[in-house]
Amino acid sequence: MMTLESYLPEMLATRRDLHQHPELGWTEFRTTERIVKTVRALGFETIVGRALFNLDYTFGRNEEMIRDAANQALRDGMDAEIMKELDGYTGCMAIFDTGRPGPVTALRFDIDCVAVEEDKTDANEAWREGFTSKVRGLMHACGHDAHTAVGLGVARWIHDNADRLNGKIKLIFQPAEEGTKGAAGIAFSKNLDDVNYMIGAHIGVKARLHEVGVIRSGFLSTTKYNVQFTGVAAHSGSCAQLGRNALMAACNAAVQLMGIPRHGKGNTNVNVGIVDAGEGRNIVGAHANMEIEVRGERSEINAYMEECAKRMISGCATSYGVDYKIETAGMATSVVSDTMLCDLITEAAKNTEGVQRVFDIDACPGSEDCSLLMNAVQKHGGQAAFFFFGCDHPGHHLKTFQIQDTESMPVGFSVYVKLLEKLNATGC
Amino acid sequence: MMTLESYLPEMLATRRDLHQHPELGWTEFRTTERIVKTVRALGFETIVGRALFNLDYTFGRNEEMIRDAANQALRDGMDAEIMKELDGYTGCMAIFDTGRPGPVTALRFDIDCVAVEEDKTDANEAWREGFTSKVRGLMHACGHDAHTAVGLGVARWIHDNADRLNGKIKLIFQPAEEGTKGAAGIAFSKNLDDVNYMIGAHIGVKARLHEVGVIRSGFLSTTKYNVQFTGVAAHSGSCAQLGRNALMAACNAAVQLMGIPRHGKGNTNVNVGIVDAGEGRNIVGAHANMEIEVRGERSEINAYMEECAKRMISGCATSYGVDYKIETAGMATSVVSDTMLCDLITEAAKNTEGVQRVFDIDACPGSEDCSLLMNAVQKHGGQAAFFFFGCDHPGHHLKTFQIQDTESMPVGFSVYVKLLEKLNATGC
Amino acid sequence: MMTLESYLPEMLATRRDLHQHPELGWTEFRTTERIVKTVRALGFETIVGRALFNLDYTFGRNEEMIRDAANQALRDGMDAEIMKELDGYTGCMAIFDTGRPGPVTALRFDIDCVAVEEDKTDANEAWREGFTSKVRGLMHACGHDAHTAVGLGVARWIHDNADRLNGKIKLIFQPAEEGTKGAAGIAFSKNLDDVNYMIGAHIGVKARLHEVGVIRSGFLSTTKYNVQFTGVAAHSGSCAQLGRNALMAACNAAVQLMGIPRHGKGNTNVNVGIVDAGEGRNIVGAHANMEIEVRGERSEINAYMEECAKRMISGCATSYGVDYKIETAGMATSVVSDTMLCDLITEAAKNTEGVQRVFDIDACPGSEDCSLLMNAVQKHGGQAAFFFFGCDHPGHHLKTFQIQDTESMPVGFSVYVKLLEKLNATGC
Amino acid sequence: MMTLESYLPEMLATRRDLHQHPELGWTEFRTTERIVKTVRALGFETIVGRALFNLDYTFGRNEEMIRDAANQALRDGMDAEIMKELDGYTGCMAIFDTGRPGPVTALRFDIDCVAVEEDKTDANEAWREGFTSKVRGLMHACGHDAHTAVGLGVARWIHDNADRLNGKIKLIFQPAEEGTKGAAGIAFSKNLDDVNYMIGAHIGVKARLHEVGVIRSGFLSTTKYNVQFTGVAAHSGSCAQLGRNALMAACNAAVQLMGIPRHGKGNTNVNVGIVDAGEGRNIVGAHANMEIEVRGERSEINAYMEECAKRMISGCATSYGVDYKIETAGMATSVVSDTMLCDLITEAAKNTEGVQRVFDIDACPGSEDCSLLMNAVQKHGGQAAFFFFGCDHPGHHLKTFQIQDTESMPVGFSVYVKLLEKLNATGC
Repeated sequence: MMTLESYLPEMLATRRDLHQHPELGWTEFRTTERIVKTVRALGFETIVGRALFNLDYTFGRNEEMIRDAANQALRDGMDAEIMKELDGYTGCMAIFDTGRPGPVTALRFDIDCVAVEEDKTDANEAWREGFTSKVRGLMHACGHDAHTAVGLGVARWIHDNADRLNGKIKLIFQPAEEGTKGAAGIAFSKNLDDVNYMIGAHIGVKARLHEVGVIRSGFLSTTKYNVQFTGVAAHSGSCAQLGRNALMAACNAAVQLMGIPRHGKGNTNVNVGIVDAGEGRNIVGAHANMEIEVRGERSEINAYMEECAKRMISGCATSYGVDYKIETAGMATSVVSDTMLCDLITEAAKNTEGVQRVFDIDACPGSEDCSLLMNAVQKHGGQAAFFFFGCDHPGHHLKTFQIQDTESMPVGFSVYVKLLEKLNATGC
Repeated sequence: MMTLESYLPEMLATRRDLHQHPELGWTEFRTTERIVKTVRALGFETIVGRALFNLDYTFGRNEEMIRDAANQALRDGMDAEIMKELDGYTGCMAIFDTGRPGPVTALRFDIDCVAVEEDKTDANEAWREGFTSKVRGLMHACGHDAHTAVGLGVARWIHDNADRLNGKIKLIFQPAEEGTKGAAGIAFSKNLDDVNYMIGAHIGVKARLHEVGVIRSGFLSTTKYNVQFTGVAAHSGSCAQLGRNALMAACNAAVQLMGIPRHGKGNTNVNVGIVDAGEGRNIVGAHANMEIEVRGERSEINAYMEECAKRMISGCATSYGVDYKIETAGMATSVVSDTMLCDLITEAAKNTEGVQRVFDIDACPGSEDCSLLMNAVQKHGGQAAFFFFGCDHPGHHLKTFQIQDTESMPVGFSVYVKLLEKLNATGC
Repeated sequence: MMTLESYLPEMLATRRDLHQHPELGWTEFRTTERIVKTVRALGFETIVGRALFNLDYTFGRNEEMIRDAANQALRDGMDAEIMKELDGYTGCMAIFDTGRPGPVTALRFDIDCVAVEEDKTDANEAWREGFTSKVRGLMHACGHDAHTAVGLGVARWIHDNADRLNGKIKLIFQPAEEGTKGAAGIAFSKNLDDVNYMIGAHIGVKARLHEVGVIRSGFLSTTKYNVQFTGVAAHSGSCAQLGRNALMAACNAAVQLMGIPRHGKGNTNVNVGIVDAGEGRNIVGAHANMEIEVRGERSEINAYMEECAKRMISGCATSYGVDYKIETAGMATSVVSDTMLCDLITEAAKNTEGVQRVFDIDACPGSEDCSLLMNAVQKHGGQAAFFFFGCDHPGHHLKTFQIQDTESMPVGFSVYVKLLEKLNATGC
Repeated sequence: MMTLESYLPEMLATRRDLHQHPELGWTEFRTTERIVKTVRALGFETIVGRALFNLDYTFGRNEEMIRDAANQALRDGMDAEIMKELDGYTGCMAIFDTGRPGPVTALRFDIDCVAVEEDKTDANEAWREGFTSKVRGLMHACGHDAHTAVGLGVARWIHDNADRLNGKIKLIFQPAEEGTKGAAGIAFSKNLDDVNYMIGAHIGVKARLHEVGVIRSGFLSTTKYNVQFTGVAAHSGSCAQLGRNALMAACNAAVQLMGIPRHGKGNTNVNVGIVDAGEGRNIVGAHANMEIEVRGERSEINAYMEECAKRMISGCATSYGVDYKIETAGMATSVVSDTMLCDLITEAAKNTEGVQRVFDIDACPGSEDCSLLMNAVQKHGGQAAFFFFGCDHPGHHLKTFQIQDTESMPVGFSVYVKLLEKLNATGC
């Protein structure tokens, strides 16, 4: 049997290659190609691209940008057959069926990057090691490159240890986690229907290098909306009365939304992050776009925020006599992990070489759309959990983000495979 | 035949008595009593109080204040029989039927005061002459005392000159002109159905002493609204989510209303004059009242303002999930006087002793609810006009307002009776 | 030695008398008279009324209402000498000096009522027992009557047990706790300079009957502000450009204040509870009053809210060219109790007859101005703590609020005297 | 002597060439080149480009766009020498000095196009005649191509009639009239110091084909502002308290600005036409841009609007703790033409073949920055006037705008040359 350390070189190579070729959410064509080729070579069945999703819940897609990215990927040499299979969507579920009865365990790895221009100074380990991003303005500044690399490492371990395992293992390589856009389409698809255990992880966050944090409960429930107001243009000087002012509807909505009152039963948040309105200085603004998000400590609190937000948007449209459209652009929820799985993670982490501290987390601000996959599995009676495997990072989404991959990735990898050894062990 | 001058002493006595006993709109009980007794003694039929109005259009009544005022009037010695006839409403239409065929001419005199504490210094002619207001906080600071006195003078003149007149003459002593509350109920009643000529006047405004201004067209169309938002109270600290914030609906509505855009086809105005909202510092405000008004250069422009205002109020109620009620509290419109009557007024004024200048007015800001009476008559084919008879005043509604009654009232009186001599002359 | 039970009848009598004579914050003249007379009779020195406070920090006083209340109290038979001593201020610090060296322990009892009309049905124990409020619109609906009665019971116990005690004991009968107005003036006075132990308590809140809750840390830091905007009136129709719109400054400020963003490090709250603005429908509003409050989980978070609020008020005044005044109307802060005292309270509670549960509280929403007294003592090196002694209540400030006084008051009394037995025991 | 008709073919050719090569304000390089070459060939001295302006008053320049346009013009074959002379600025003052004593008369022709995609259907006369715009998205949809062509026609006429003229004639070919950006820099330069008569004109507007309208007074005073708010970005979910929200400052400012109250003494207008704010959905918006304009019937009324706008922008910056910058992006004012010149125009128009109606205009909404040139000349004692020479147009700035150039341009040309015949006739 191969040692766990023996998987590291391939994970490093994968991670550093992906780090140089970051792709934004829904455009991870090259990344998906690499995943698909790798897992197929290891004997996994695959569900790829469009087939992975309930298309009613794939949020925040910019079809023009996606089309451009697909064309660029083809020009850069991507396999046209795989592109065809993807049918405009990215991501891959790799399924390993041991052929023996047993539970279905799903692990989730997210694969997209963020829109940050990477630091090209010696302060950045990727720069010192020569594997910084080759794409201007894009960077794996949240560590999803490491997630993917760990996932492919786990795939190889499954292949190598197939005869020690039973049941099925589903590795979910999920696109578009940033903005919580990608998970919902999988969560509301049929592809999780048979899953008994759903486990996800993130590098860094609240765990420093040599630490593992187990999320007993946490994450904010959140909904992202794109709002469009559409009015009627008119020359503001000579006939403003003929106009319908979408710009003013948006500005008033922004003002009102920021004032949604706190909920007495748990934390809330709201932000109007983008307002882009109007056609010209002396025109009654006929178009306005807003990008907003609400959050709540739990899903019912987030639902309160959603309801308030929708009411205000509707009210402002009424005030100015304009039409409006509210489009969900992302979604995540809060989680309560199952104790059995949390305890298994804790044990696995404690048995992992190099881990110096394992701790529980009961409240975790920020949102993570793996929560939707976890809730989906729990809803039909399965169990779910989430953990952080640490690294010393300066803050996610910063241009100086780094992860000490040689030390951090083995920890995530080890916890995953030890979990599989427990959950899908023959004889279990 | 009596000279016109011979009517002055009684007009002065009347005006100075009324000046000492000012009564706010809809509470002119004592004033109405005086009018009713006078005109009945002169052989006029009367329609008094409630019977004068279409009750669907009597705006801005504070029933509690009216009841208190009625009780006070009775305590002060008012005739209980007349009070009963009034049935809670003030005002009187005095009808003189000559018994001869001829046109029906209506003249309108408004009778209410304003809430201003009169200047009690030598700068004020009423103080120097010893007839200032005896009611704290109230004053005839708009000259309606003079209007009423002139109206009663005209009544006596009609009585004295009955055999020289034909047709019918209706003297409308209208309550509650301030805030444009009283005229609508008369305009939308049956009491104007037979009127052929409708003439109104105001002392002062744009006419100085010894001047007469003829309103060819003017006055802003206006609507006054009282707005109530009703939400749900809740402790703001512990359970704001259970509240529905009427205070915020009102504040947002105020902000939006002030921004109703200008109309390209004519002047507009809007004001939120009162916002009174909330129950306590740490309570989600469940009640909010606003007093607002919109104006437009013409009725269709005012209608645009009304529509915008209603939309905004409705929108803000939606935004905050509260109920709302919009109550019309006053109404007036714009006028275009009929040329024939304007020319007659001009001629009458030029033939009046002491008048040094007669001029036309084509645009008159401010609002006057006689406009509703004029429009009502014009709508069924009658004619209407309006004029100013001047005085040297420092500004209406000021505590120092004054009118030089011995000089100004005879001018108004003279124009009126000369008009009657033309319009209702036997032989016409 | 008298049993603790033997103190109950007098406490009941006191509480039920006070319940029938509730007095609002800063007007507790009759209540103070009763306290002063009682404690003086028991050998306490007193600091009363004005002398109790640093007058720079006495918030939320309505001097006209206070004057009226004082006059009424005199008419109702209050001792004129005591009224003179009070010099317009209520409250009393009763000081018992054992004459022996030892610590200075201060206990705080608040004495004011709330503006609630008491329930006069059989659902209310006070109604069934015949001691409901005799003052229309006022009620001891927060249990401060019981606090005062317990305080006077403790005073008698001190008198009875004087020879078993050393050091000094200061009983602070504090006015105007509601709205967190009264404590600051005492906290910033010299009267706490020598205090070693500061202990406060509240009936009910999170403790049910037969329970005692120990506040290890909690309460929201809060600041109450009265805001006045002063502009310039003008006729909105004819010369709005001459006005300065205080009403609009207030409405915009309300809108902005509700949108102060959440603080990432702890809970916050804000409420605009009252907006009262404008002089008339067609007048540019020249006056506006707002009553607002901000809260923060800790004082530095509240300070962030204060800063945002002040900036917005200032900004809105600038926007509309109006003057403004921000007046502090109340203040409280968060507390971290000292462990030694908390442990003593826990022990005292466990040793109290009838107590079935003693529990710690680490987070308590709502605000309590005893926090200012506690912080003041801690700031100079003293210790402080706070506890709840329970009752089965339907919610504070409700007209149906009740406390089962025969069972609840003995618990509070017992914890207090057991603390004194420990803290000020001779031989300690 | 040549007939006036003989000038038409060249004007037509010029206009139709310019129509095919429209250039936006401040990028009229090709247009300026044509003007400069033409007038120099006719014996005019020139002041071109940068030298034409007081650079403190050249508004609304997008330097990057201007640089790109200049480079494109060079690539398209523009004379590099002239480009160098222009030194980054467009426009030309062509000066014809007769060498004889006499008045200095300035005529103004604006030369820029608007950003409209021209109608390419048979409804458009330019399409039918085959001379539509060759630049995607740009069109001479306001007739400035005709103005320029007329100006060059006048130049040739001056050259041809030089010996009949005295004094000096200055033809101002002004860039960037759209958005009222270009005139101020000329008005506040020294180049008008010696001008005695300043005359401008516009095709169309309120005059139909065969009509001439004389602006006795009119145009709204206006100021265009670009406003930038700069705050501090922060993650809205985890640390909004560290941010400074420029987006909210802008939205509140938009809301407040739309509510600047009407001025009682004359018409006003305000528009917030563009709001572009924020960096991302979950970021406290650190940047916001607004494009606004205010207007007033006269310059003092516009000054009131300016003052209110600046106060509100400043107030909102204060409210949200952000910095702001207000940049003037355009400016025009109201005019009162001089009677002598108006009468001359009327006479010239009446003597022009094909003119069927000449009428006075006393109020003209909309703004025109020739007003600044007129005011500048009047300020030092000169005289100024403005007229419309008509065409049957569907509305300016529409893609279907057209002018019947063979019939309309001769009228403008004729009025101009007849004026010069009067104002600068030898023997005058």
